[in-house]
Amino acid sequence: MILQGKRTWVFDKPPVIIAAGTVVGPDEGEGPLAADFDLVHPDLEMGQPTWEKSEKLLMEQAADIALQHAKLTKDRLNFFVGGDLMNQIISTTFAARTVGAPYIGVFGACSTSMETLAVASLMIGTGAAEFAMAGTCSHNCTAEKQFRYPTEYGSQKPPTAQYTVTGAGASIVARAGDGPVVTAATIGKIMDLGIKDPFNMGSAMAPAAVDTIQGHFQDTGREPGYYDLIVTGDLAGVGHPLASEMLKRNGVPMEQTKFQDCGLMIYDVEKQKVQAGGSGCACSAVVAYGHLLKRIRKGELRRVLVVATGALLSPLSYQQGESIPCVAHAVAIESSHPGYQGGVTA
Amino acid sequence: MILQGKRTWVFDKPPVIIAAGTVVGPDEGEGPLAADFDLVHPDLEMGQPTWEKSEKLLMEQAADIALQHAKLTKDRLNFFVGGDLMNQIISTTFAARTVGAPYIGVFGACSTSMETLAVASLMIGTGAAEFAMAGTCSHNCTAEKQFRYPTEYGSQKPPTAQYTVTGAGASIVARAGDGPVVTAATIGKIMDLGIKDPFNMGSAMAPAAVDTIQGHFQDTGREPGYYDLIVTGDLAGVGHPLASEMLKRNGVPMEQTKFQDCGLMIYDVEKQKVQAGGSGCACSAVVAYGHLLKRIRKGELRRVLVVATGALLSPLSYQQGESIPCVAHAVAIESSHPGYQGGVTA
Repeated sequence: MILQGKRTWVFDKPPVIIAAGTVVGPDEGEGPLAADFDLVHPDLEMGQPTWEKSEKLLMEQAADIALQHAKLTKDRLNFFVGGDLMNQIISTTFAARTVGAPYIGVFGACSTSMETLAVASLMIGTGAAEFAMAGTCSHNCTAEKQFRYPTEYGSQKPPTAQYTVTGAGASIVARAGDGPVVTAATIGKIMDLGIKDPFNMGSAMAPAAVDTIQGHFQDTGREPGYYDLIVTGDLAGVGHPLASEMLKRNGVPMEQTKFQDCGLMIYDVEKQKVQAGGSGCACSAVVAYGHLLKRIRKGELRRVLVVATGALLSPLSYQQGESIPCVAHAVAIESSHPGYQGGVTA
Repeated sequence: MILQGKRTWVFDKPPVIIAAGTVVGPDEGEGPLAADFDLVHPDLEMGQPTWEKSEKLLMEQAADIALQHAKLTKDRLNFFVGGDLMNQIISTTFAARTVGAPYIGVFGACSTSMETLAVASLMIGTGAAEFAMAGTCSHNCTAEKQFRYPTEYGSQKPPTAQYTVTGAGASIVARAGDGPVVTAATIGKIMDLGIKDPFNMGSAMAPAAVDTIQGHFQDTGREPGYYDLIVTGDLAGVGHPLASEMLKRNGVPMEQTKFQDCGLMIYDVEKQKVQAGGSGCACSAVVAYGHLLKRIRKGELRRVLVVATGALLSPLSYQQGESIPCVAHAVAIESSHPGYQGGVTA
């Protein structure tokens, strides 16, 4: 019985994140977390004829690096759980063709990072897999092209808009090994407070983050102070303060912990032209798998709750006047070495 | 340890499909399985202003009927695992907003029916949920509009093309109760033999069905004769004979069992203008949840392997000259009453 409360899985044998791989584009390579990523591409094309093929390459490279770090051949993977923002999640699916592992495609927009990690952890934590890979990717130009305007337009944006991260993150979860562990995962409900502006997705997603964070505490009996850090996925400059305010009003003692957002961490929002901050499936994936896992391995962080947020709109639903349904999935990642203060091991 | 072989889950406490709901459109209502569906819409509009809203309605109705049959209120659902063919799976996501349960969005094209049932069964079989709903939907006109041409064109099609089923199917899986049980699930790998013609998806998907069927027997040690019936999802008139031929060449003794295809069962392919047969997420969902579950409950079938097939292309990947990656997920559904010969209970 790993179900605790309504919608949280608590693992008595916590799955181990034995390795991860992160790949990013040039803007992320100029951001404050650049040193934490395994591979930084100097340009957005990456030698590919289309943006979509560039995005697929990112996912393939992240998967490859994760496998190398894990010292695993890809035939050892029981399952690859992955997804992305593209119509019919083609980037991940085509990468899965390369990886060759049994494949579970998921869609959670930018919450896909933790949706895939939650499902992969469920498999490992219940004996349904020996090795499972979770992965996701996004590319600034594929997202612009699909959700907004042709990239050639160079269209202007309001300051509430967000900047899609170019990158991919993959993690390999196993029953045993060296690395941070997944102790719990909370699955999100669709939250929709009626916001219809796709240039203000942070505000649309904030209630989903709040609902999942509160649900996580309710289900587990944990308090914010259990974590050294709680990070939302990509609420950015408009949505994150809104989520803070909502949690405060709801009486959640968030002052016990640090509360940050991957979309604000990945860029120097003041200097880089990213409007309100980062977004995209890769945003929370590369921050979690690049930056946060390394800080946990270094002993700088012990317990982190990553709350990846997703705006589940499509251009068509927007055109038909629908509001933006949002979701957030939370995964608790903790150090497996209580006294561990050493360097990065892999 | 529920992992058996490389990619199959075998449940020692088999999850029970306690209820299901199926809703279809007018063409399916004129097909040979019409009497097995819970609700038949007389037209494709269903009183909605857009095809997408009609498709969402189908999913909402199927979920609602499944909950009624299960005598469950929706707040009892721990999770809703769902997806569909639409960009960003909007039909299911907007239906999930109505259902209100914690939501795992997946994408497996037409394999989504069994992908969602496999994941929901994993949750139940491992104690990760008490009640989980699996569901998917498709609508002929949303699929035509998105993947092919504007519906107003009435464009001609080659005889290898398939006809997207209008409908939705939902099942509710639980740890105990009355109903057929899920004894095993095998997750598919991406198979791509280089077919690029979206009007011949049956041929593209056949190798994926074959690979998953063979993987299922390899992992479980079962033989085709273990099953009264093995059904593929939507290989239809071109793909299904191809899969039969491939299995024969590979030495799989399929003569031990009946081998059919949901895309050929749902329509009278000779009389109805459906080209090679049915396709779409709803095809295998409504045949499995409407027709097959009823036959199992009646005692006409004891053990069925449903192998849902999916063509994971997007219009963009096709336009960029890519071939069609395909996948198939198999779920074994069996009678829980070895001597049961009674009527339909729910």
